[in-house]
Amino acid sequence: MHPASERAASAASGKKPHNHDLDPAFPIHRGGKIELRPTVRVRDNAGLALAYTPGVGRVSQAIAADESLSWEYTWRSNSILIVTDGTAVLGLGDIGPVAALPVMEGKSLLFKEFGNIDCVPICLATTDVDEIIDTVVRIAPAYGGINLEDISAPRCFEIERRLQDRLDIPVFHDDQHGTAVVVTAALANAAILTGKDLPNLRVVISGAGAAGVAVTNMLLASGVGDIVVCDRAGAISRDRADLTEVKADLALRTNRDGFHGSLFDAIRGADVFIGVSSGTVPEAVIATMAPDAIVFALANPHPEVHPDVAHAAGAAIVATGRSDFPNQINNVLAFPGIFRGALDVGATKITEGMKLAAAEAIAKLVAGDLSPECIVPDPFHAHLSSSVAEAVAAAAVAEGVTRTS
Amino acid sequence: MHPASERAASAASGKKPHNHDLDPAFPIHRGGKIELRPTVRVRDNAGLALAYTPGVGRVSQAIAADESLSWEYTWRSNSILIVTDGTAVLGLGDIGPVAALPVMEGKSLLFKEFGNIDCVPICLATTDVDEIIDTVVRIAPAYGGINLEDISAPRCFEIERRLQDRLDIPVFHDDQHGTAVVVTAALANAAILTGKDLPNLRVVISGAGAAGVAVTNMLLASGVGDIVVCDRAGAISRDRADLTEVKADLALRTNRDGFHGSLFDAIRGADVFIGVSSGTVPEAVIATMAPDAIVFALANPHPEVHPDVAHAAGAAIVATGRSDFPNQINNVLAFPGIFRGALDVGATKITEGMKLAAAEAIAKLVAGDLSPECIVPDPFHAHLSSSVAEAVAAAAVAEGVTRTS
Repeated sequence: MHPASERAASAASGKKPHNHDLDPAFPIHRGGKIELRPTVRVRDNAGLALAYTPGVGRVSQAIAADESLSWEYTWRSNSILIVTDGTAVLGLGDIGPVAALPVMEGKSLLFKEFGNIDCVPICLATTDVDEIIDTVVRIAPAYGGINLEDISAPRCFEIERRLQDRLDIPVFHDDQHGTAVVVTAALANAAILTGKDLPNLRVVISGAGAAGVAVTNMLLASGVGDIVVCDRAGAISRDRADLTEVKADLALRTNRDGFHGSLFDAIRGADVFIGVSSGTVPEAVIATMAPDAIVFALANPHPEVHPDVAHAAGAAIVATGRSDFPNQINNVLAFPGIFRGALDVGATKITEGMKLAAAEAIAKLVAGDLSPECIVPDPFHAHLSSSVAEAVAAAAVAEGVTRTS
Repeated sequence: MHPASERAASAASGKKPHNHDLDPAFPIHRGGKIELRPTVRVRDNAGLALAYTPGVGRVSQAIAADESLSWEYTWRSNSILIVTDGTAVLGLGDIGPVAALPVMEGKSLLFKEFGNIDCVPICLATTDVDEIIDTVVRIAPAYGGINLEDISAPRCFEIERRLQDRLDIPVFHDDQHGTAVVVTAALANAAILTGKDLPNLRVVISGAGAAGVAVTNMLLASGVGDIVVCDRAGAISRDRADLTEVKADLALRTNRDGFHGSLFDAIRGADVFIGVSSGTVPEAVIATMAPDAIVFALANPHPEVHPDVAHAAGAAIVATGRSDFPNQINNVLAFPGIFRGALDVGATKITEGMKLAAAEAIAKLVAGDLSPECIVPDPFHAHLSSSVAEAVAAAAVAEGVTRTS
């Protein structure tokens, strides 16, 4: 409906009109935020005869004879699918595939702006794990990578693992690994600033969903000594009987001292608090942390604790997910460069080593400017994506996980 | 492999090098022919906060509350999927999904150039009818239409029918209906020029695949009196025991006089020959047609009969699928305008009436220039796509097959 007709209809029905015209987010979304365009202009029949029949037929025949030529003569070397089922969209939860589309378009926009990657949105009309996997495998041939997005835990873990087993292109669940890479980078710099040593850190993570699990795994891989992960029932420990398979696995590798208790109890004496769930942590609880505490309050749009409150409670370094505070932990620091690097060398997957290389590259970008208000670069940092891409590409080549290796 | 390394490798192995560098079709295909770009620029954190979080969340919430808003605030109102399984690509046959990609990219390019439509290529790693249907249904939510392409007969008929039954967006198999629309337009003009009347025409069609079946159906719908369709075994008649379901159905509505015999026998005395298969028709056979014969030799790249030969044998009007002869029967005359019109009014399907409206609009565009060398417009005719779109949109509205009707 045209906005004018919409207002008229709302007025006639006596209902309060939508505030779409008053919210600047709506006009920029009108008609969507992305388009699919030719990179080759066809101005006459001679051009048609090259870009389309009969010329295109010779290219197709060459690829039919040698499929590896598809990486040279199609967009596949630079195109990825962003796939969601709409079950865990931002902080909005299960809003369905169609309502998830603006977010997927937004991510596609960021992939192109920051990584020069062609990213096609796929919003799935199914939430069944097997159907999602089969569907993505069937539509993969025209694409060089799969970015999973906003798929709820614990389904997201199985979907990513089984898809990567079946495909020889990178499969990457950004809500897990994008977040983990940026948190790892930020924590490395925060540790330098506070003079803390990763092996001696005690980290408490609130949230055992996609982000919580991936952050835990990556911090363990980067050498953090002790991590206690908390879900709604409190600290996750080996003896809890209510754990999912994923959480039970997590329990085997975390909570070194077998701590039992609530999140607030766990935070007492911790060096680092990382919030990747929702909920609020009061000032008094932050005040029980170790000296020079590091607080990453990443819930969006409402951080678990306001930065001013965290600092007042003694935190030395505070990061959030928001752009209006210092130290924004934003996945856009990672995913464009990670896929750029992976595509550049024809990586067949994205390994732990490639993610660690990305985190190191992100952390290093602010080495010269390091301060409690600057532990990660700005998303618009001129060399961000290229630095991450180079590090990721080098790691992929070194590990031999490319098509040609 | 880099072209230089490729040549070196070929030389070392003693094999003849690929001729890719000598064929101008290859350089323009390097890296593919399409890209996915933002239509909204994001230059700073304030821009990010509108196009991505938190702004995008408000748009997603609005759509979650009222899904019809997705047509206003996402690219769905202008985006379609082009779907192939690679089983019937151009004249090349079953070359597989990856080798089909350059053709899909070419078609996407044409959709944008001629119809300003965002067209995403999907090359399916399955040829199973049920799997194709399920897959397309699952990935449809982010798109406003489905263009099926280069899927072999008779599977294409069932896939199109069952997909349209399950989706409330247009599903259109271009190899069928695009060809049928342009042939119908061309034949209407050829009949005017030769003073022949559609109900009194005797038409012979060579080929009972996707194009042959659709051309037959559409010519019958537009009033052609008698059509004999031939497959490899000759004329299709009711008493043939070897017919597929689709051909048996065709037999009920064609071959009025119960003709038996070969294609060449069928052509004797015919007013119109339409070739949509492969094979050759000799000059002597064309010479047996009725006076002022109309010959559409549409096999690509080798017409069933060369235009010069057909004219020498007495044909009054000759069309081919090639751009280097007059009267090119090219689907690009139809599909961009048909989808443009369907998307403009939110059509839920593409009906016979909409296709006939498209054919009439195409035919009318050359009404002032009608000649034996000009029975259809050039693909670059300035008003082609808009004229077809307007006619198709009006027909959709008149028939009440739009989302809002």
